[in-house]
Amino acid sequence: MGGSIHIIEEVLIMKGFVVHHGDAALQDLGGGTTRRVLAHGPELMAVEVGFETGSEGAVHTHPHVQCSYVLSGRFLYSVEGEAVELAPGDSIVVPSGLPHGTRCLEAGTLLDIFTPEREDFLKK
Amino acid sequence: MGGSIHIIEEVLIMKGFVVHHGDAALQDLGGGTTRRVLAHGPELMAVEVGFETGSEGAVHTHPHVQCSYVLSGRFLYSVEGEAVELAPGDSIVVPSGLPHGTRCLEAGTLLDIFTPEREDFLKK
Repeated sequence: MGGSIHIIEEVLIMKGFVVHHGDAALQDLGGGTTRRVLAHGPELMAVEVGFETGSEGAVHTHPHVQCSYVLSGRFLYSVEGEAVELAPGDSIVVPSGLPHGTRCLEAGTLLDIFTPEREDFLKK
Repeated sequence: MGGSIHIIEEVLIMKGFVVHHGDAALQDLGGGTTRRVLAHGPELMAVEVGFETGSEGAVHTHPHVQCSYVLSGRFLYSVEGEAVELAPGDSIVVPSGLPHGTRCLEAGTLLDIFTPEREDFLKK
């Protein structure tokens, strides 16, 4: 390891490259939904989105490509008006610019990953 | 919805945009590790990597930016020779080209997300 650059944990955490779950702020988005921004860098951002049963992520679009992975719960997930039911372990990739949204059938959490990162989620 | 293109679930699944967990093949990588390639498109790929206690993901590099999210278990995760312990819900982003690897402290599963997708994982 002689010539390599050593990165200490504190530096990785400061840059947002490592995020311990307990250190991620829980944001109440209203309507029974919450958000935790997890590890992120310019090219990738991981975000947990919590949903109460019956809550919704309204149909929207963004240029970022998104992957959603179901950590828990059940979701009706729509892409361009067609819906698919997703259960824990199921995953979906939403191409750039496609309208998508979700309705929570059973309370749970989605892990959303974006490329590039959602800079709008980092504004105070 | 009059003018929109309707995408049916079967088409999304064929493209790999939706992957139900039970449909993802479990690959035995040897050494106590397994891989399931989940939803993927050109810009993003989600992959579950299972580890038995004491198994390792050897230090390696690739141009893809990677995010790892701990679904279960405990891991000692190294980036450029410095290690951090990760527990469920913890996450890390590994920038392009940085040497990284992991040692499993308690059996579990990492969700790895890559941008762009790992084409080498799709070859038969």
